[in-house]
Amino acid sequence: MSTAVSPLAPATTPEMPAIDGMRIATAQAGIRYRNRTDVLFAAFDKGTTVAGVLTRSKCPSAPVEWCRARLKGGTARALVVNSGNANAFTGKSGRAATQLTARLAARANDCDVDDVFLASTGVIGEPLDATKFDGVMQTLVESAAPGRFLDAAKAIMTTDTFPKVATAQARIGKTTVTVNGIAKGAGMIAPDMATMLSFVFTDAPIAAPVLQKLLSEAVTDTFNAVTIDGDTSTSDTLLAFATGAASARGAPRIARANDPRLKGFARALHAVLGNLAEQVARDGEGARKLVEIRIEGAASDKSARRIAMSIANSPLVKTAIAGEDANWGRVVMAVGKAGEPADRDKLSIWFNGIRVAARGARDPSYDEAMVSETMKKPEIELRVSLGIGKGRDRVLTCDLTKEYVAINGDYRS
Amino acid sequence: MSTAVSPLAPATTPEMPAIDGMRIATAQAGIRYRNRTDVLFAAFDKGTTVAGVLTRSKCPSAPVEWCRARLKGGTARALVVNSGNANAFTGKSGRAATQLTARLAARANDCDVDDVFLASTGVIGEPLDATKFDGVMQTLVESAAPGRFLDAAKAIMTTDTFPKVATAQARIGKTTVTVNGIAKGAGMIAPDMATMLSFVFTDAPIAAPVLQKLLSEAVTDTFNAVTIDGDTSTSDTLLAFATGAASARGAPRIARANDPRLKGFARALHAVLGNLAEQVARDGEGARKLVEIRIEGAASDKSARRIAMSIANSPLVKTAIAGEDANWGRVVMAVGKAGEPADRDKLSIWFNGIRVAARGARDPSYDEAMVSETMKKPEIELRVSLGIGKGRDRVLTCDLTKEYVAINGDYRS
Repeated sequence: MSTAVSPLAPATTPEMPAIDGMRIATAQAGIRYRNRTDVLFAAFDKGTTVAGVLTRSKCPSAPVEWCRARLKGGTARALVVNSGNANAFTGKSGRAATQLTARLAARANDCDVDDVFLASTGVIGEPLDATKFDGVMQTLVESAAPGRFLDAAKAIMTTDTFPKVATAQARIGKTTVTVNGIAKGAGMIAPDMATMLSFVFTDAPIAAPVLQKLLSEAVTDTFNAVTIDGDTSTSDTLLAFATGAASARGAPRIARANDPRLKGFARALHAVLGNLAEQVARDGEGARKLVEIRIEGAASDKSARRIAMSIANSPLVKTAIAGEDANWGRVVMAVGKAGEPADRDKLSIWFNGIRVAARGARDPSYDEAMVSETMKKPEIELRVSLGIGKGRDRVLTCDLTKEYVAINGDYRS
Repeated sequence: MSTAVSPLAPATTPEMPAIDGMRIATAQAGIRYRNRTDVLFAAFDKGTTVAGVLTRSKCPSAPVEWCRARLKGGTARALVVNSGNANAFTGKSGRAATQLTARLAARANDCDVDDVFLASTGVIGEPLDATKFDGVMQTLVESAAPGRFLDAAKAIMTTDTFPKVATAQARIGKTTVTVNGIAKGAGMIAPDMATMLSFVFTDAPIAAPVLQKLLSEAVTDTFNAVTIDGDTSTSDTLLAFATGAASARGAPRIARANDPRLKGFARALHAVLGNLAEQVARDGEGARKLVEIRIEGAASDKSARRIAMSIANSPLVKTAIAGEDANWGRVVMAVGKAGEPADRDKLSIWFNGIRVAARGARDPSYDEAMVSETMKKPEIELRVSLGIGKGRDRVLTCDLTKEYVAINGDYRS
């Protein structure tokens, strides 16, 4: 297990302002790790709305099923997240663990059990001993305080090499509202950790159905446009909580998704999710290159997404980039296997703005030395023009290195 | 580039009998390699029928397009295959190269240009200098002789660590016929070789449409049930040639696909393709484990195939097997992401017959030591029971090792 911080980590961590109407605490429950926090608790004031996007896996974790059922209510009073154990593929005992955890939190926080949201990340298939939360829950509730988002991000890390936070502000009417987000990446290790988790918090007063619509829209070209290895977790969870506390400062309550006053907020939400999603790609296991794949001229945006993902998940493209080779032959291969409309003789490909292939063959002005030089950079933009329509897309990924195989294969030796 | 023979290579190479009605020659044309053969030429007697299955890539190589157009005719007199250059993504010059190669072969072999079949494997995107065939074509035609299938398999190797041949016999009526096959694996290297190629030859007298139907059926659970890295080549080509020479020994001509006398032949064809497909998996780049994935109890056979492929192409499953870990949590993840009907609480998973997970949770009798021991074997059978239907499937793959990343990423350093 590599403990070095990813060379692609952001240079600075933003100051995270407090959000009215919520408090955060973290604790060491000893779920699996020693000498580090492994439980995140957030308490929300009455009136907090919630929305979520959960994994599409047909074998979801117990907390994912718990959240899916509770999101219908649209209200939240508490969030409990643990690292060290994913409570996935744990059968009846997994369901029992979510129920016990939620009951403990509801009792300590004096709220309805259905207003407690849960997420777990860590080992798959080992029973989660939820009684471990019993010892820390009361302290968590009592010590919860405003701010502390960086602590929150640290408590949910598994193989992440840096904590992931992002913040943005917007105006609703004349009132400034804040959107804070934290995330952990798709780290998997020893013996099988999974999960992308992200939690977003705002003081904006937004009805749950509206928040859900904004979240679902924003996820399409942020978290859903990131892939590390194409392996969808059993536990992927994104939850957004809106305390509404900004209404005390004059922010109007937003109850309709087409309210024009939402424009700035939607942009801020998108910025936070986009920032966190990029950090997840920057902390991909073993990643040494951040790769942005841009598709243009595809038959449709949907078709562009499929082609972008085919390239982003191709082991041969990813290993070539790790080897600092602008291997456009493999890009052609990945376009071809996507099954989407493509015309080989109209394809053009650029690496960091340098065209290497044009209209179905190597670019006549291809300069190997110049291309080799640009491939040494830590950030690679791979652009593909299909030349057959107006579909566009953008996807983030990273390279595939021996370190990835080591992290995911060598953990037993 | 690793030159050691795969530890998963078959212990013995079968004797390959000659097939009446065809002759083989190989030569050094110096396409890319030095001091090794890189051109395979096969001449077929008049009356030889041909069938083929070609890559579904939307960006196929020039030879694939050439073959697709000629297969409609159903007759073949010559096959020319080169290694070292895939003639893929080569634009107009690629088409010109196929035309020139076919013309040279047709002239030397005194046959119609449309009866010449072509395949190329090697670098993508570099123009293929077909004039290099000019110097060797006449010699190839003159020196072509019966047998020589092992030489043929050697001439088409790229990153393959061993030549791949297989043979089987069957009776049509009272006459014994032979099916010989050769293949090369999905090796890719320096800077970007691609292609699974396979050629099958028989003396059975079988009409082209019938041969096509048999071939298309047989490929479903042989070559199409093998994956190394999920990256479909621009050049995948499987061609079957039936010289019909066995009719001189009394074999009846088969013109209808439902002819009951085809049964033994279909079985032999299937055996040869299955054998070659397994050899391809055994020579997967960097492979140290041959992995057989068996799915049962799925909603349908088609659903079982999708689930099997999701597992077989999961980097996390493949790295875990490389690390000799029976990581069923990752198998659950791969089942879940396949998007096919699955019920987590009915899933059971076995490694080499040892059940590790049952009905949605870890097997109560799970014995870590016993499981660890079996994971050391070079051949791993991973069986998954969905418990919801009668769909079944079987897919072959290999593990994902640091050697794979080295082969595909380190070639420039």
